[in-house]
This record gives sequence, structure tokens and C-alpha cells, in this order.
Amino acid sequence: MLIKDVSIMEDGRLLRDVNIAIDGSRISGVGSGVADESGDGVVIEGSGMLAIPGLVNAHTHLAMTLFRGYADDMELLPWLEEKIWPLEAKLTAEDIHWGVKLGCLEMIRSGITCYNDMYYFMDETARATKEMGLRAVLSGVLFDMRPDLIEDAEPFIRRWKNDDLIIPAVGPHAVYTCSEETLSRALELAERHEVMLHIHLSETRSEVESFEKNCGKSPVEYLDSLGFLSDRVIAAHCVWLSERDISIIAERGVNVAHCSISNHKLASGIAPLDRLARAGANICLGTDGASSNNSINLFQEMKTTAIAQKCAHSRPDLFGAGEVWKMATENAYAAFGLDLGLRAGALADLSLIDLRKPWFFPLTEENIVSHLVYSAQGGVDTTIVGGRVLMEGGFIPGEEEILDRAQQQFGDLVAR
Amino acid sequence: MLIKDVSIMEDGRLLRDVNIAIDGSRISGVGSGVADESGDGVVIEGSGMLAIPGLVNAHTHLAMTLFRGYADDMELLPWLEEKIWPLEAKLTAEDIHWGVKLGCLEMIRSGITCYNDMYYFMDETARATKEMGLRAVLSGVLFDMRPDLIEDAEPFIRRWKNDDLIIPAVGPHAVYTCSEETLSRALELAERHEVMLHIHLSETRSEVESFEKNCGKSPVEYLDSLGFLSDRVIAAHCVWLSERDISIIAERGVNVAHCSISNHKLASGIAPLDRLARAGANICLGTDGASSNNSINLFQEMKTTAIAQKCAHSRPDLFGAGEVWKMATENAYAAFGLDLGLRAGALADLSLIDLRKPWFFPLTEENIVSHLVYSAQGGVDTTIVGGRVLMEGGFIPGEEEILDRAQQQFGDLVAR
Repeated sequence: MLIKDVSIMEDGRLLRDVNIAIDGSRISGVGSGVADESGDGVVIEGSGMLAIPGLVNAHTHLAMTLFRGYADDMELLPWLEEKIWPLEAKLTAEDIHWGVKLGCLEMIRSGITCYNDMYYFMDETARATKEMGLRAVLSGVLFDMRPDLIEDAEPFIRRWKNDDLIIPAVGPHAVYTCSEETLSRALELAERHEVMLHIHLSETRSEVESFEKNCGKSPVEYLDSLGFLSDRVIAAHCVWLSERDISIIAERGVNVAHCSISNHKLASGIAPLDRLARAGANICLGTDGASSNNSINLFQEMKTTAIAQKCAHSRPDLFGAGEVWKMATENAYAAFGLDLGLRAGALADLSLIDLRKPWFFPLTEENIVSHLVYSAQGGVDTTIVGGRVLMEGGFIPGEEEILDRAQQQFGDLVAR
Repeated sequence: MLIKDVSIMEDGRLLRDVNIAIDGSRISGVGSGVADESGDGVVIEGSGMLAIPGLVNAHTHLAMTLFRGYADDMELLPWLEEKIWPLEAKLTAEDIHWGVKLGCLEMIRSGITCYNDMYYFMDETARATKEMGLRAVLSGVLFDMRPDLIEDAEPFIRRWKNDDLIIPAVGPHAVYTCSEETLSRALELAERHEVMLHIHLSETRSEVESFEKNCGKSPVEYLDSLGFLSDRVIAAHCVWLSERDISIIAERGVNVAHCSISNHKLASGIAPLDRLARAGANICLGTDGASSNNSINLFQEMKTTAIAQKCAHSRPDLFGAGEVWKMATENAYAAFGLDLGLRAGALADLSLIDLRKPWFFPLTEENIVSHLVYSAQGGVDTTIVGGRVLMEGGFIPGEEEILDRAQQQFGDLVAR
């Protein structure tokens, strides 16, 4: 496959009239004279388009896309107790299937090619994701009240460890829902199978305060005392952190999945990204579930992250577009060990964005990153994962059926 | 003209299969059995679409769309002194023309049918806006250092007061750039011609503090002491307000143009919308200029306003979708005296949004406002202003030329 005459970003600058050759699941060449050597004869006209490497959604619960708009503007506990948990108690694999596919549609349309998820029915999530053609790091959620889920963590890894698109991981829910035994078991499992650990960490003030009161340590200190924290960990939220917590996170190489919109919408607070960044922590971006966002769109997440951090610190010069762009791309590639980027040898996970839209004007060689972070908001034309074209010219095969089935499935779920 | 079988919102609920008849510049009927009596034979198929009344952008400097991405991530003073003011000093009517048209494209694509602007070369802004077919409340910016602009304020009103799309107003820039004489003259002019007063008010902390130090009053108290404040005033920003300021704004009926994204990106602060709302102030939403946003999109503004206010007050139940939707519509209609809404007799300013997009699923009768505020992000298919179709099926006649000319004009401006 050859993407012809497309623009790319190189060191933050716009570079026009480049060819990108794809052979199988990988990029075989990027440059002005590059030719297709795959022999498949497929040509995508890239003129007027910008190719970007795949964005990585570092924390979500994709099946919850089925709950979009079901409950908003509520206090956290009634929201969970009256709305979300009762629905979750009724979930079937069929709900998960259509919720995941619905979420995949939005990700394909906004340039997300890989997502990191922790939820229920993860085999179904993996199957639905593979049918959609996306890449995913998946872990079944683990907590003490569901020993069956804990029992299945290792078989789940074995079932998916050699898949081309699914990367299994271990997902202990949080320190307040998992005992020391569960956490240690998750850690041991992750180390033995060399997979990631995905956990919610210090999301709300009350959660952190009550944990400290009971345990005498912060959640971060506690996890560190168990030897849990390393660069194998992707920790979602990290809103309420002490200076000591921040040092530990940075020293251990923990990857932070910052969820700006969810933290704002649920009024959890504003994460101390500046101190995390200065300490050297690796920061990625996540949408969280659609029930607390309500989008699955990293363009929104990049803009909200940048402007919220500027405002929180009264410093408009902090968190520039280039730094935030890295959070959605390179930082996440490093966190999840993804061989991505627009270069020969990397996995062919990329999108083409139509530059002939008003929000990309005026366009100069210097302002392309600013436009991507502050103006673009998605508008993806073509998305390719592992060399497979998932959307071209805004068309995703099967989209209409997924919309209708997700609609019907949500009705069934609520009425069940 | 008849828009057939479209969905609308009624009291926040989705109502399907409605017809909207348009006769000349106004809506002649809305309902299931409504027929076209205009005789023009034009039919727009509304099936699968949601009709929304026009969104109103209550504060912007539209020509600055030409500066999009030119300077970001900078401290306020260097940003103004090194980047924005030098460009503004070189502006010509031709720059304004293409900057305004570029901004209009983005507004048409995101359902904004009317905007409130204060800038330079407002006759050119008015002409370009009329060519694009949008509605606008326009005022030339007034400040002491440019007596020529002050002299032209009244002739500008006379030139445009009988226009069908342009509503002239008076735009004293701010209390720190306008003397008491200039403010009083603006007030007298606005009262005599019965037009609006558009002013920047208490945007940054340093501006308010230095004004108070020099004057002994807050900017709001000072304006009130001049008799300036009434429901004729649309005050942009209103970020740094005392309790007394808030009481005055509410008592005088001042309309607030809240600019959440700009206030975040420039790190100006978070406006006390909760206290303003509780005091009974009329709150509208503005994008500010593209150089501090960098979008001209009220869907983004609605979402950012809602989630930022929730987070600032640790109250996820505050500023629900319905309340924020009103800020972009009904509150602004009241502020500017616009006869808008989806009802017989109102001006035919409306948009159709494609509901067959993943971010509108699942769709129920109850969650449509939530989807508009938290998930939609624009995606407008058709925009109509005063009965004239400006975009249909995502196509805006002349868009390509505007993009190219704006691009060229920006290059000329920078090189000039």
C-alpha cells in the first residue's frame, strides 16, 4: 500500500509531499521518493491530508459507551449507586459487544488506534475490538468481591498473549477495592507474564483521605511498600498526590494516564501535571469511559489538558501544544511498548486528517501542532491499523448496523 | 421552504418527525402536520437530523481568525506586545475581509448563526458577514488612543441601523483603555440610538487590581457610578468579580459573555458563574478570538463551561447540560433581543445536525441535551440564516476560495 503525496509532521514542523509505504502490518518507508514494494497495488491519495501516527487512549472502559448520556450532572455516589452500578449488574456479553463496537467507531473517527481498557467480559471486548480492527491493551477488572474475575486473570493472559492486536494485561481496580493479597497476586502475575498492570490511583480526594486514615499511608506509598510500582504500571487519574507521591511515581517510572475531561466532569479535581512532569513522570492521556466524558476523543482531551493546566497554574506558557501532543502519542508508545510512529519498521497504525477545513487555516510550517491540539477536534478521514484500512474517506464499513444494534442493545439493557 | 420529518428538542426532550416551514426570512410553522405555504417548492429532507435554533457567539473578534496558530503558549504581555499588536498595526480591510470569512466558515459548520464582535474595520466586517449570510451584532472598538474610531462610532450606527442582518452597537474596549469621557460618550450614543454596549470587563486579575489601586473602585463599581450598566450592556469575561460586583451586574441586568476556553488558555482564571447565576445574571457564551481559543465553536464552549464549573466548585451536579444549552441559545436571544427559536414567527436561523453519528448513540428522548452539550462537538450538516441556506449537506459554496484567499492574505500580512 502507498499513501501518496501526504503531509507529515517532523520535529513539530509540516513536511509536504511525502509518500508512506506499507507492507503487511508495518510501514516500509516514509519519504519523498518512497515507492510501494508490497505488490498489493493499493494507493491512497494523500494530497491535502496530514498523516499522523495513531493516538493512544491510555485509560477507558469502552463498553460503557453504551451508557453515554444515561446519567449526567449528578453527584458521584448517587451516580454510581443509582445509575451506573445497577446497569453494570445487568450487563451481558452482548451488551459489551455492541458497546465496545460503538466506542470503536468514535475512536476510528478521531484517530485513536490503540486503547487501554479495564472492565468486565474482556474476552468479548477483545473479540469485538479485533472485528473492528483496532489495537488494545486489555485487562479484566479485579476486585475482592469477585473472586471469579481474579481466577480468570491468568487464563485471560494465556488466551490472548500471542494475538496480533490484543495485548493482555492485569487490572486490579484500585487500592480501596483490592486487598493486599489481590494486589500482590496481580503483581506476581504481571511480572511472571511480563504484562502491564492497569490500576485506578488517587482519583478523588475523599478516596485518598479515607485510605490514609485507615492505612496510615497514601495509596501511592502503600502500593510502593508492596513493591507494586514500576514502569509496568499504568495508573489512571493520579489527581490527589503529595510531593512524596509524585517523587515515588517518577522514581519508579510509573506511567500516568491523565483523564482531564472525566476529572472535570465528575469534579474530581485537577491533576498536578506540572509537578509530575517536572519530576520526570511519563504522562499519557485517557478519555475514561463515555459515561463520565461523554466523548472518546483525544483531540478534546489534548485541548482540555493544555488549557486546564495553564489556568490552574496561571501560566499560559505551560503545557504547550508540542508537549501535550507527545502525551497522546510518544509518551503512550513508551508506556505500552508500542512500536509506533511514522517511520520505516513501525507498525502501520496511522490516520489521515483533511487539512482543507477552516480550522486548519491559516496553515504554516510552524503552526501544525498548535492546530492539531487547539483547533482540529478530530475530523479524521482515513484510519489504518496494522496495515488494515478501517475507515477511508470517512466511511467505516458496517457502521450503520453497529449504531442500530447498540441502540437496540441499550434499550434491552435498561428494560432487562 | 419545508424541512421535512426532522427531530427537534421540546422542553429538553426529543420530538421526532416534525416539519418546519419557512416563508421568507421567518419560520411560518413547526409541527407534525405543517405544510409549506411559501410557494418556493424547496424541500430539505430532515430525516435522521436534529434541528436546533441558531447558537449565538456572544463575544468574539472574528477577523482574528486570520491569526489562528500564529502565537500560542505565551505569557499574556509578550503575546500581545510581540505578536498580536504588531500584526494588528499592519491590518488592512482586505485582511479583515478574509479573516472574517474564514471565521464565518467555522461558525456555519458549528451552528453559530449570529455573533457579537468588537474590532477594527467594522464596515468591512459587516460586508463580509453579509456576503456569508450570517447575522452579527457589530461595534468598532473604541479607545482613547484612536479618536478617529470614536468619531466613526455614530456614523457606523447610521450606516447599518436598517440592515436585515447587521445590528450595529457601540464597543468601548475596557475601563483601562477608555477615559470617563469616552465611556460616557459611548453610553450616550447607545442610549440615543437604542443599541447595545459591548465592553471587556474584569478579565484578568492584574487589570482589576491595578484599576482598583488607581481608582479606588472595582471596574464594575466604576462603570455603575457612571450609570453605564444596564441590560443594554454585554460584558465579556467578568472573571474577577467581588460579591458587590456580582450584585451590581445582576441588579442592573448586565449580560455576561462568558469565554471559558479563552480564559483557560490565557490563564485568566475561572469566572464565578455559580454566584452570577444565583444572583440572577444573564449568562451567555462567547468564543473570544481564534488567537486565544483557537476554535470558533460553541459546542466546545458549552462542554468546557459545564465541566470547568463543576470542577471549580467540586459539584458535578452544577451547570447541567440544559442550563449550559440555554446560555448558547435563549439567554443570548434575550441579551441581544433576537427573535429566535424553533417556533412560528421567529427568524429562520437554524441548523440541522446529523444524528447518525456514533457520538449521538444511544439516543433516547431524554438524553438529547446531554449529547448536544457533552458529545456532539459540532458536526452540523445544514445551516440556515434568515431563511437562506448557507450550508447544505456539509457543502458551503465558495469555501475553497475563502480558504485559499485567507491563507494568502495571512502570508501577505506577516510579510508586510
